[in-house]
Amino acid sequence: MKEIAAMKFQGDGDGLTEVGGFFCSGVAADVRGKRDGRLDLGVIHSKRPCSVAGVFTTNDVKAAPVNYCMDLLERRNTLNAVVVNSGNANACTGSKGDRDARVMAAETARQLDLEADDVLVCSTGRIGEQLPISRVTTGIKDAAEDLAEGIEGGRNFLRAILTSDTRTKSCVAEVESKEGTYRVAGAAKGAGMIEPNMATMLAFVTTDAEVEASLLRQLLQDVVEETFNKITVDGDMSTNDTVLLLANGFSRVKVTSGDAAGIAAFREALTRVCRYLAEKIVGDGERITKVVEVKVEGAMDDDAAERVARAIGNSMLVKTSWYGGDPNWGRLADAAGYAKVGLEFDKLDLFYDDVPVLRQGEPRIRNRDKWTKIVGRDRFSIRMNLNQGNGSCQVLSSDLTEGYVDFNKSETTGDPNSTSDD
Amino acid sequence: MKEIAAMKFQGDGDGLTEVGGFFCSGVAADVRGKRDGRLDLGVIHSKRPCSVAGVFTTNDVKAAPVNYCMDLLERRNTLNAVVVNSGNANACTGSKGDRDARVMAAETARQLDLEADDVLVCSTGRIGEQLPISRVTTGIKDAAEDLAEGIEGGRNFLRAILTSDTRTKSCVAEVESKEGTYRVAGAAKGAGMIEPNMATMLAFVTTDAEVEASLLRQLLQDVVEETFNKITVDGDMSTNDTVLLLANGFSRVKVTSGDAAGIAAFREALTRVCRYLAEKIVGDGERITKVVEVKVEGAMDDDAAERVARAIGNSMLVKTSWYGGDPNWGRLADAAGYAKVGLEFDKLDLFYDDVPVLRQGEPRIRNRDKWTKIVGRDRFSIRMNLNQGNGSCQVLSSDLTEGYVDFNKSETTGDPNSTSDD
Repeated sequence: MKEIAAMKFQGDGDGLTEVGGFFCSGVAADVRGKRDGRLDLGVIHSKRPCSVAGVFTTNDVKAAPVNYCMDLLERRNTLNAVVVNSGNANACTGSKGDRDARVMAAETARQLDLEADDVLVCSTGRIGEQLPISRVTTGIKDAAEDLAEGIEGGRNFLRAILTSDTRTKSCVAEVESKEGTYRVAGAAKGAGMIEPNMATMLAFVTTDAEVEASLLRQLLQDVVEETFNKITVDGDMSTNDTVLLLANGFSRVKVTSGDAAGIAAFREALTRVCRYLAEKIVGDGERITKVVEVKVEGAMDDDAAERVARAIGNSMLVKTSWYGGDPNWGRLADAAGYAKVGLEFDKLDLFYDDVPVLRQGEPRIRNRDKWTKIVGRDRFSIRMNLNQGNGSCQVLSSDLTEGYVDFNKSETTGDPNSTSDD
Repeated sequence: MKEIAAMKFQGDGDGLTEVGGFFCSGVAADVRGKRDGRLDLGVIHSKRPCSVAGVFTTNDVKAAPVNYCMDLLERRNTLNAVVVNSGNANACTGSKGDRDARVMAAETARQLDLEADDVLVCSTGRIGEQLPISRVTTGIKDAAEDLAEGIEGGRNFLRAILTSDTRTKSCVAEVESKEGTYRVAGAAKGAGMIEPNMATMLAFVTTDAEVEASLLRQLLQDVVEETFNKITVDGDMSTNDTVLLLANGFSRVKVTSGDAAGIAAFREALTRVCRYLAEKIVGDGERITKVVEVKVEGAMDDDAAERVARAIGNSMLVKTSWYGGDPNWGRLADAAGYAKVGLEFDKLDLFYDDVPVLRQGEPRIRNRDKWTKIVGRDRFSIRMNLNQGNGSCQVLSSDLTEGYVDFNKSETTGDPNSTSDD
């Protein structure tokens, strides 16, 4: 990490309300129709209008709220609120789905004395089912009533956005600049299993820095590419993936395009927040037991490195071998080979953590006990050097377990709350 | 299937020796070093020189015998024999691996009174370990002694090439042409699990038709594309994948480039043989419980259709839902969406077998009981029409089970014979 004068960072905590001027709430709207009191509807609100940036799924099949937000952000640079439900993705729901997304925005606006265009909408949950819109609007009314600064609302919001996650995910960074102190806070819901492509990730970032929308959007795009996009290991995304960043300027600290040092500090804080959330998402993947960093270097270019890293990180056979603690480097070499970047096996260096497995394609068999020990850990790294150029890429992956299969095999088995597709 | 005058087809049977002039054997060479008497070395031999064609893995990391065969087929159009071992892939084995492949060819040639260049070499098994070459050459000597026409040798060969397969795979087609009768026989070893990319497929086809090498190669390439390549659902291949076709002309029936009807009949026989073997390979996948045909039509072009079909067929979430008998069409739509072919959800038709799930993006919810029944079967089809053009593709896939994960998680668990990576 670069040296930034006076940055503090804290994982967990209260989430988005750790930033001045942001209020949150989370209520039970019974989106799933199970009457279990689970929190499933949340609101983020800033009375000060916020500059806003968003990054959305590139899936051809986009959920109604994703289309809603993308349209809105073409028209609007500032707005005040976000409404989120879990338990139903409002995806593949046709014209009623589009209407329901608009209803969610309008009802939130009505409760908060805003215009409909002041409100972004996110959903996460099972695909292909219509929202129970009357329960959702009742929930929005409850959430608006509950909006309160401080611990309760921030924490309830963190819980309300979860689906198959086992833990809430949040963090906050504080930057002391020469102009003053501002904060960047993040909250996310995990993609049950990260590598496969349909586990929705929602992430929300709030800051009380003042940043104009065009700069905010560029920074978010860059940082998402280096953080969240390096955990969706094959680059494919769900119907609902969304990252939103709201800057309300409450701290009166300005980050402007002319101020390189100021931008660097903000970018660093944003990166730390996003990276923290991304790592928590992988670590909370559905029934995983291991987190594995896959580092590829020496590729012809970064794109080639990324293809190799993703091929390794997505291979079912690689992932099952990690689960079994089997230092099966042949599976790594094979996966790298089918990425088809012109890899030359006799140039390949490979390491588990820092222990050599291959040097110029020659196995270091005497290290086998060391490899086995490393692969037995619940976190380790694979480093592969193609020795062909300067391209590099690092992705974060996980193992594949029987528990994952069991968990995902049917909506009618296991935890009834944890089978959403989002 | 097109109408071909007088073609007979028979699954199973004795394999490659059902074709005149081909002799096979299979012996226990103890490649794995387990002294379990398992057959693991096989030879195919024709005293008449055979026109020969081969299709090989496109993985950047190719096993030594694959490189050996590719080189040889650049120099030679005809040859007489193939030697195959299971239990060790001879992949990622450096210069010793290359030498061992040459030794296998040379020893087979010596035993059969041939030149080394008359012999092709295949290996399948764990990657990254050196062959026990002295046991292999002893095995070759035994195999040469055992070479005998008829049931025993053909059947032993079928067993000797298996790794994690539970069943031998073979078939024979017989064509009555105006010139006379010839046969096309096939033998294969399965790719444990087909979709992931490292399960080696070896397939051998013999025919007593007389076909010149250039025509034979074109036909094999075309037919493999439509059969075997439509089961390796993401198009990636192992270090060792190989399909070999040998034509010894024993029947004296000629298939020549001028004779369109003759070529069509031969192609049809070859296609039936390869398709049969491909289907058997999927059906014998590691711990699978279902075989699913994924048919995509109405895409902008065939390439787009193939990308959609492979995205569906390779999605872990789709495959686990099939395993669970869950008609989770949202996962299908999402996978199709991340294939990024410009799919428009509101044009999408989707069927389980012939039962509509989506029509122009609208769910046919009243059919839900029917979908559930179909997905509960051990074989069914998914048909998706993008309604954008005339492109189509069909791939054969399977489910993903806890058994698969358990089976592949470690070389040190489960059946010690069934953990090879090939």
